[in-house]
Amino acid sequence: MTDRNINVEAAERAAVEDQGVEIVERKGIGHPDSICDGIAESVSQALSKLYIDRVGKVLHYNTDETQLVAGESAPRYGGGEVIEPIYVLIVGRATTEYDGRKLPVDATALSAAREYLNEHVPELDVGTDIVIDTRLGEGSGDLQDVFGEKAAEVPMANDTSYGVGHAPLTETEEIVLTVERELNGAYADDNPELGPDVKVMGKREGDRIDITVAAAMIDAHIPDLDAYDDAVDRVREFVEGVAERLTDREVHVDVNTADDYDEGSIYLTVTGTSAEMGDDGSVGRGNRANGLITPNRPMSMEATSGKNPVNHIGKIYNLLSTDIAETVAADVDGIRDLQVRLLSQIGRPIDQPHVAGAEVVTEPGVDLEAIEPEIRARIDDRLANVTDVTRRVIDGELSTF
Amino acid sequence: MTDRNINVEAAERAAVEDQGVEIVERKGIGHPDSICDGIAESVSQALSKLYIDRVGKVLHYNTDETQLVAGESAPRYGGGEVIEPIYVLIVGRATTEYDGRKLPVDATALSAAREYLNEHVPELDVGTDIVIDTRLGEGSGDLQDVFGEKAAEVPMANDTSYGVGHAPLTETEEIVLTVERELNGAYADDNPELGPDVKVMGKREGDRIDITVAAAMIDAHIPDLDAYDDAVDRVREFVEGVAERLTDREVHVDVNTADDYDEGSIYLTVTGTSAEMGDDGSVGRGNRANGLITPNRPMSMEATSGKNPVNHIGKIYNLLSTDIAETVAADVDGIRDLQVRLLSQIGRPIDQPHVAGAEVVTEPGVDLEAIEPEIRARIDDRLANVTDVTRRVIDGELSTF
Amino acid sequence: MTDRNINVEAAERAAVEDQGVEIVERKGIGHPDSICDGIAESVSQALSKLYIDRVGKVLHYNTDETQLVAGESAPRYGGGEVIEPIYVLIVGRATTEYDGRKLPVDATALSAAREYLNEHVPELDVGTDIVIDTRLGEGSGDLQDVFGEKAAEVPMANDTSYGVGHAPLTETEEIVLTVERELNGAYADDNPELGPDVKVMGKREGDRIDITVAAAMIDAHIPDLDAYDDAVDRVREFVEGVAERLTDREVHVDVNTADDYDEGSIYLTVTGTSAEMGDDGSVGRGNRANGLITPNRPMSMEATSGKNPVNHIGKIYNLLSTDIAETVAADVDGIRDLQVRLLSQIGRPIDQPHVAGAEVVTEPGVDLEAIEPEIRARIDDRLANVTDVTRRVIDGELSTF
Amino acid sequence: MTDRNINVEAAERAAVEDQGVEIVERKGIGHPDSICDGIAESVSQALSKLYIDRVGKVLHYNTDETQLVAGESAPRYGGGEVIEPIYVLIVGRATTEYDGRKLPVDATALSAAREYLNEHVPELDVGTDIVIDTRLGEGSGDLQDVFGEKAAEVPMANDTSYGVGHAPLTETEEIVLTVERELNGAYADDNPELGPDVKVMGKREGDRIDITVAAAMIDAHIPDLDAYDDAVDRVREFVEGVAERLTDREVHVDVNTADDYDEGSIYLTVTGTSAEMGDDGSVGRGNRANGLITPNRPMSMEATSGKNPVNHIGKIYNLLSTDIAETVAADVDGIRDLQVRLLSQIGRPIDQPHVAGAEVVTEPGVDLEAIEPEIRARIDDRLANVTDVTRRVIDGELSTF
Repeated sequence: MTDRNINVEAAERAAVEDQGVEIVERKGIGHPDSICDGIAESVSQALSKLYIDRVGKVLHYNTDETQLVAGESAPRYGGGEVIEPIYVLIVGRATTEYDGRKLPVDATALSAAREYLNEHVPELDVGTDIVIDTRLGEGSGDLQDVFGEKAAEVPMANDTSYGVGHAPLTETEEIVLTVERELNGAYADDNPELGPDVKVMGKREGDRIDITVAAAMIDAHIPDLDAYDDAVDRVREFVEGVAERLTDREVHVDVNTADDYDEGSIYLTVTGTSAEMGDDGSVGRGNRANGLITPNRPMSMEATSGKNPVNHIGKIYNLLSTDIAETVAADVDGIRDLQVRLLSQIGRPIDQPHVAGAEVVTEPGVDLEAIEPEIRARIDDRLANVTDVTRRVIDGELSTF
Repeated sequence: MTDRNINVEAAERAAVEDQGVEIVERKGIGHPDSICDGIAESVSQALSKLYIDRVGKVLHYNTDETQLVAGESAPRYGGGEVIEPIYVLIVGRATTEYDGRKLPVDATALSAAREYLNEHVPELDVGTDIVIDTRLGEGSGDLQDVFGEKAAEVPMANDTSYGVGHAPLTETEEIVLTVERELNGAYADDNPELGPDVKVMGKREGDRIDITVAAAMIDAHIPDLDAYDDAVDRVREFVEGVAERLTDREVHVDVNTADDYDEGSIYLTVTGTSAEMGDDGSVGRGNRANGLITPNRPMSMEATSGKNPVNHIGKIYNLLSTDIAETVAADVDGIRDLQVRLLSQIGRPIDQPHVAGAEVVTEPGVDLEAIEPEIRARIDDRLANVTDVTRRVIDGELSTF
Repeated sequence: MTDRNINVEAAERAAVEDQGVEIVERKGIGHPDSICDGIAESVSQALSKLYIDRVGKVLHYNTDETQLVAGESAPRYGGGEVIEPIYVLIVGRATTEYDGRKLPVDATALSAAREYLNEHVPELDVGTDIVIDTRLGEGSGDLQDVFGEKAAEVPMANDTSYGVGHAPLTETEEIVLTVERELNGAYADDNPELGPDVKVMGKREGDRIDITVAAAMIDAHIPDLDAYDDAVDRVREFVEGVAERLTDREVHVDVNTADDYDEGSIYLTVTGTSAEMGDDGSVGRGNRANGLITPNRPMSMEATSGKNPVNHIGKIYNLLSTDIAETVAADVDGIRDLQVRLLSQIGRPIDQPHVAGAEVVTEPGVDLEAIEPEIRARIDDRLANVTDVTRRVIDGELSTF
Repeated sequence: MTDRNINVEAAERAAVEDQGVEIVERKGIGHPDSICDGIAESVSQALSKLYIDRVGKVLHYNTDETQLVAGESAPRYGGGEVIEPIYVLIVGRATTEYDGRKLPVDATALSAAREYLNEHVPELDVGTDIVIDTRLGEGSGDLQDVFGEKAAEVPMANDTSYGVGHAPLTETEEIVLTVERELNGAYADDNPELGPDVKVMGKREGDRIDITVAAAMIDAHIPDLDAYDDAVDRVREFVEGVAERLTDREVHVDVNTADDYDEGSIYLTVTGTSAEMGDDGSVGRGNRANGLITPNRPMSMEATSGKNPVNHIGKIYNLLSTDIAETVAADVDGIRDLQVRLLSQIGRPIDQPHVAGAEVVTEPGVDLEAIEPEIRARIDDRLANVTDVTRRVIDGELSTF
């Protein structure tokens, strides 16, 4: 056991699962805000790798500010077209020179963004449907020498920041997260008409869960309104199936509720994302680090995507607190609701937070004192391996949105 | 009494004032994120007024996506210079034509942004230190006819959205908010070396409050390091004075803790904002609608600044829930902590939320049942006057960040 | 014979071939100015085709203003990299809506530019090495209805404009033109180290011709300085061969004269164009419509590339005057030097110029009066077929730079 | 007398004044192309001064690539408005760091552009009616150390380039130049309805001169069509007066011939330039260094505006050849037409051109041999003072367009 300041206590509140009303949201990977998060994070990973490859360590950068300006499109049954391209501006700071050697940060950023889009929003033809530009400036002088020379070294916190994580997911959270992932996974593979811009909203009141899905359909695969209607029905049935697997509560599913068939107003797109027609996007405006927006729980305002995973304490603590909460909840029996909060202390190593606080709601009949040592041990262990988070982020193993 | 679905209940938690650890943050008006919020909201007000002036009603727009790319500067005692200007891209949607008549939305947006900056960050010479550009496209067709013809009419909710507000402020919140406002008010008037980029962080552990201020100094008014040191001291003393006025708890104040005089590393700027040197900014990444970032409280992820105040339910409900909480806490005795949450229902008038929930922590000895009717009546009254929020936003009476 | 105002007269000057000093220049297709010309013209062709395809006729547009901002690169023997991408802004006017239907002009322009670059500067990876953006606005209202409904109709001149063409080429002109075309043709196919940015300058003083070639080498195919030196030698030998084929005069060839091997200063590039490193470009700043810059001859200042080939009188007359000069010089014996000038008359059909003037220097012993009828007939014939120029431009048969 | 290679010979052609048809054009200072020339040149002057001020000598830069994208406006009798701002991108190369010290090239460029516009196109509200942005990159390494350390030193030619100048002006040239200057001078001072975008075209056939003026009127000063018609009449009368002062030939003046009062199509603007509505612009596409476009005379394709006046041989030789021609024609009697051409020689001082050639058409009865020594002496003298051109350009004494 170390001398880390770990504080485990009983939560002075009901578990979210037991609260009367719960709201949960997830913006799918094709949503304009998520596209920005995805680009920002893929640019960050690419820059980390570039720096490690060229100079053996990650240099200063921060690319957490991608801005997307919506385009204009003319969807049509059987296949329409993009009229005015989406515009994406990758914004941030990056070290462009080291030891007298120039580093291709702009080209690397553009390349990473293009690869990301090709993989996740493949209907978007980069360069025609979407224009990507960069404005990556130098950081302030102070920040350029912030990193230790030794990769293994635990960096110092350079800011007062905090992170918050929760586990386990409530049923509603689990459903919302799973629905989006499976729709954008196996379902889309089999149903090419479904675009990646899938937004899932879950609302639970008592034991009734309403799941509302807004799903962008791709016009090339939709010959007419009947086909559209079928596609919407298939999504609904699929989502109902997912939900039934995950809860015994009463579940109602709505898909594309804003449609008005009489007016010919349906959610039809050329590329599968509303960014093609009027929806702008930005980093840090959508999902939190655990992939969800959860108004019932404390959330960090910090954008996680695009930040430097070596020294940005806000990013590290958001990911680490989530990781800790999940680990504890998985390993220790008897936890109904766990919230982990990490608060940094300027000038101390980041594995020594000012406080690592866990608020626990135990299962009925479980005594917190009995499981407290186990919880504490796991928190201590994860903190000791804090640099692991950095490595996993660079390798793309940890999702940030 | 109406049939509005108002739900008043006891909070299943301690008042934030009584929790063990509390964190509060406010990004001052000169912070890059706040600059974006301020520009977005001033553009929004200007567009609302333009539309009312020209066509008698507010047309569709949404300007909640301003992106700021930091510049580069060379501060120097006595007055340095901006090397590379800050770049600001105003992004959003706006109706550019109505009844065959073109409307000057771009020129209006640029003009509003310039006026805002001239007033709030006057050291920034717009056009030289900062370049402002716009990308305001048309919205999607569906959204263009969303508004009722009658101004007085309560609009329908077009999305499932929610807002959350709290009152009264805890001592720490009050201190953080007041410190920034007074520093950027009377203090700056008397001490021109203080720039508007003042970031205030408050941390309370038990009965000790730590206030950390990062204050950008303007080099033209700082002849040397001694003068800088004096300026920092003056800020500290002023902040201590503000804090002592507002709490009996033990308060410690730190100003510009990242300074390192030996290394010559101090927080000296040419224009009074870190945007001049390496800090990018974006709308919705900073303060919530009540002016604070409060991880101890549920917060909405929605950006409030820049959104259309006529029909954007997220904006209206964030502002209204704050307004309701403040009104109730001011008018009804015995409330220690109040959280108001509004959840919209698609297709119903916005003064008829799906649920308006109030969670109350009463003062010791106060019975919730006794004050519940009063609380309910005030909530009902504020909801009935929901269109008031819209008007006050357009008139600039309600702050959004 | 028609009533066209055709004026054939003897030139009051020596043939350029017989002047004491002659200067000729050609910027190769990979030169930054030529890249802009090429993009502008390919965008123009694509828009013409788009309009014909969608609405049956060419609508108003003008895309003669592409701007290229140079990038930054780090060439290296064996293969370097682009550090900062080239930025290209396609500027102009285009009709985006017709009969209530939106037309994808931006997407079409981006697509055309990319295809053009892929074909002519293939080492440039569009999207990574070069970012292409568009700013295509609407034209002024007056100009939008300028075209007749019938495609076959000869349009009216809407401006006072003129065009000037010459034939036959002098030996120096022929050499300069041929050298660039063959270097960028068969030679480059066999010698992949040669980039498309080949600039050829010819200077003739009396009977000595100096050909100076600046040829961008592509680093991936150049392992070391010896290889570079060999590559330069090969170009020199090839150019000498071309020149000897085309003239009996004394020819001296220099290649990459600015190189300084001792300083390591050579013309090595990553992508084969100097646009990657410091050379900006713009439409209309390089070659005239006949592919050359010829200070010994009158030239039009008008940019030809990117202009609308249906109604832009400057473009049509520049191409047509060149075409007429070449036709006459080819068909009529005894012409040593011919200059054709067309001057438009506002409000009259463009096949009825205000004046079509031919200045002729005959071969020794040839009487102008004898060949004048033939010349006149051919001019008349070409004018009668003026709409042919439009068609050939749209089909890409006529080069504009 | 030096050993400079000066070649004076009789022109093998008629004086332009005596040719049958002559065309001359001048784009006024408010024309979109001229706006770009003016911005580029004012940025150049400002950078020269910045470098001299900070490091004692002019560093490498080249700002000859400003691009203007037209805006959109809604002119109206009595005062309309700009709908979408004009966008100007200042493009070029500039040294941003010297001896470890950053130099504010972007801020300097933006400031210079704004001042230029405020002075010459005052109706344009910079920041609202027109957005100015910069993309000034570093030059290629080779070019950065091209300048000698001593200011007085004559630099070496680094390129094969040439310049060409003429004098005296023909009557038509004189009229075109004077008309634009006086319209944009005293006339505009007294007639505020006249905008600076005045385009003057002169066409002489034999002894008849047609002057066509396109003059942008400013709507705030034009209450109705009658006032517009009066304004057009006043311009016509004024131009007739100027022309009568300068020639005895028959002169016809047309103003705003494209107007169609029945269709309500007139040349009414908000800001006095067609850049507000559909006319893009670019550097080097308009007037040559002597302020005119003269198809009857050889012209250089080189853009003069914005180029570095210390070492850009094309700029220096264009300005110097014009200066020499004017000096010679003013000082030496008996010259009817003079063309001066300077051709550089790489690696030799620029006061030692490869050849300085003068082609002279003498007045009837004047013997070229008699005045040849005088001509030669003046050319030699001006060449000896070549660095004077640089100084005068930096001081803004020499116009470049």
